[in-house]
Amino acid sequence: MINKLVALIKKTGAPIVVGLDPMLKYVPEHVTDRAYAEYGETLEGAAEAIWQYNKGIVDAIHELIPAVKPQVAMYEQFGIPGMIAFKRTIDYCHEKGLIVIGDVKRGDIGSTSGAYAVGHLGHVKVGSKILSGFDEDFATVNPYLGSDGVKPFIDVCREERKGIFVLVKTSNPSGGEFQDRMVIDNESGDQRKLYELIGEKVDAWGSELMGDSYSYVGAVVGATYPEEGRILREVMPKAYILVPGYGAQGGKGADLVHFFDKDGLGAIVNSSRGIIAAYQNEKYASYGPEGYADASRAAVIDMIEDIRGAIG
Amino acid sequence: MINKLVALIKKTGAPIVVGLDPMLKYVPEHVTDRAYAEYGETLEGAAEAIWQYNKGIVDAIHELIPAVKPQVAMYEQFGIPGMIAFKRTIDYCHEKGLIVIGDVKRGDIGSTSGAYAVGHLGHVKVGSKILSGFDEDFATVNPYLGSDGVKPFIDVCREERKGIFVLVKTSNPSGGEFQDRMVIDNESGDQRKLYELIGEKVDAWGSELMGDSYSYVGAVVGATYPEEGRILREVMPKAYILVPGYGAQGGKGADLVHFFDKDGLGAIVNSSRGIIAAYQNEKYASYGPEGYADASRAAVIDMIEDIRGAIG
Repeated sequence: MINKLVALIKKTGAPIVVGLDPMLKYVPEHVTDRAYAEYGETLEGAAEAIWQYNKGIVDAIHELIPAVKPQVAMYEQFGIPGMIAFKRTIDYCHEKGLIVIGDVKRGDIGSTSGAYAVGHLGHVKVGSKILSGFDEDFATVNPYLGSDGVKPFIDVCREERKGIFVLVKTSNPSGGEFQDRMVIDNESGDQRKLYELIGEKVDAWGSELMGDSYSYVGAVVGATYPEEGRILREVMPKAYILVPGYGAQGGKGADLVHFFDKDGLGAIVNSSRGIIAAYQNEKYASYGPEGYADASRAAVIDMIEDIRGAIG
Repeated sequence: MINKLVALIKKTGAPIVVGLDPMLKYVPEHVTDRAYAEYGETLEGAAEAIWQYNKGIVDAIHELIPAVKPQVAMYEQFGIPGMIAFKRTIDYCHEKGLIVIGDVKRGDIGSTSGAYAVGHLGHVKVGSKILSGFDEDFATVNPYLGSDGVKPFIDVCREERKGIFVLVKTSNPSGGEFQDRMVIDNESGDQRKLYELIGEKVDAWGSELMGDSYSYVGAVVGATYPEEGRILREVMPKAYILVPGYGAQGGKGADLVHFFDKDGLGAIVNSSRGIIAAYQNEKYASYGPEGYADASRAAVIDMIEDIRGAIG
């Protein structure tokens, strides 16, 4: 799947992923009105609204980009109907030829991480049948529980030829509260920051599961921390870097150059609100709520240009 | 909700929580057979099997214990039908008067953590309606993203009078890989272990949201690390400690004494496999698969006795 991701990035010329993180406040009124008319102001109505909203955006942009990244929290907040919308979104994006990165940030102790891994990336055995739950292509993984919480994901990735992105340096303002702490190596006494230590682990985990040029084990490093991106690019030379925080969170194209390798590969930049709620941005306001999907398309084109310009 | 948890622990005399983590290999054949006969060897069939299995156990033990802790991964692995079984389990346990700790280990950046928090503990606004998604009483939270990933949970807890347990020191073998690292304070230069630093944060977060005796912000500390439990009990005097790792993972009653305060409160010990799959344990084998729920009941009674004996 990492080979397919690289191939699609080359084909589209777009090292970007669109975050399908539909908050109801982004969904145009004509979409919510129609959903509530059919399902009422219920969880089902909300789920229908975000699904239709997603579908409109995916229809407008799928040919321009290699991948989407639905953030499961935005679906999970609507309970079971929300999870159904999450699954519909995954399946529809697959139909459209897109790679789906499930932004699930799961992570637990061994056997429990194993259950998350099969649920999102693999298959479960039910009697004599082999079935799949959510069936994303990649998932994001939280490393706080250590190697035995990550390894079950790697095992499933090996079997399924799928991948993970491990949280290394997150894009949020307090991402450094623990991740930037200087840690002391128990044996050598060497000091480095926690995110570097985790970056080293990503490199080690990934060396066991290589695609053609990059590993199936990637990393999340926020666009809001370009210097850390530069350091981590060196620490994890084989890891694809998933870069959140571009656009609405403040990251700019010029900040991104160090996340990429010299050939313009090695990183994929996410934008969520900046794309899916583009019509609410002054720059694209002329599209209006009815033209929200076209506004998203225009924002994708602008983002591709910004990033291509930066990584030259 | 923390007051209610303390009251129920006092009433039952049982500082324990039963982990409803149903793997299919635990479910007796007569239960799976019936589920597959009705729904086929499908995700729906698996979900029906784990729901019926849970129901049998809850019916047998609900009067003995204050709380249950469903591990969402075990449901999520079966996709949408699994999530429906998760929700049915939550609702049924509420009907039976049990407190439900959703072991979801969620955590993300601000607005996304907010979505998880409302989905699991709070309410979402859909049009003019206020609705709830999964509606647990407590949730477990991963702190790796820092304060701005935890605070949205605290905000929802304040509004809903619900609580969280923050992962501080997990019970798994590699839990120490990052959590035990000695970290250096950026300002003072002081050194302490990462789990202690996070314990201090739990104490600080919790001081803003106190119940009568304990905070709504608790912590997860594994039974497999009794010395760390002793340290953390002092670092976070107001935090209720949720203690996984008892039983099948190797923790024993005698290891637990330091997690508790002198009055026998302050901690709640989880057992999952040791209770729900008790009939597969030689000690309770005489109950047979048909008597799995009674075996679970016997295992609960033994666990209560073991822990009471230890904490005196």
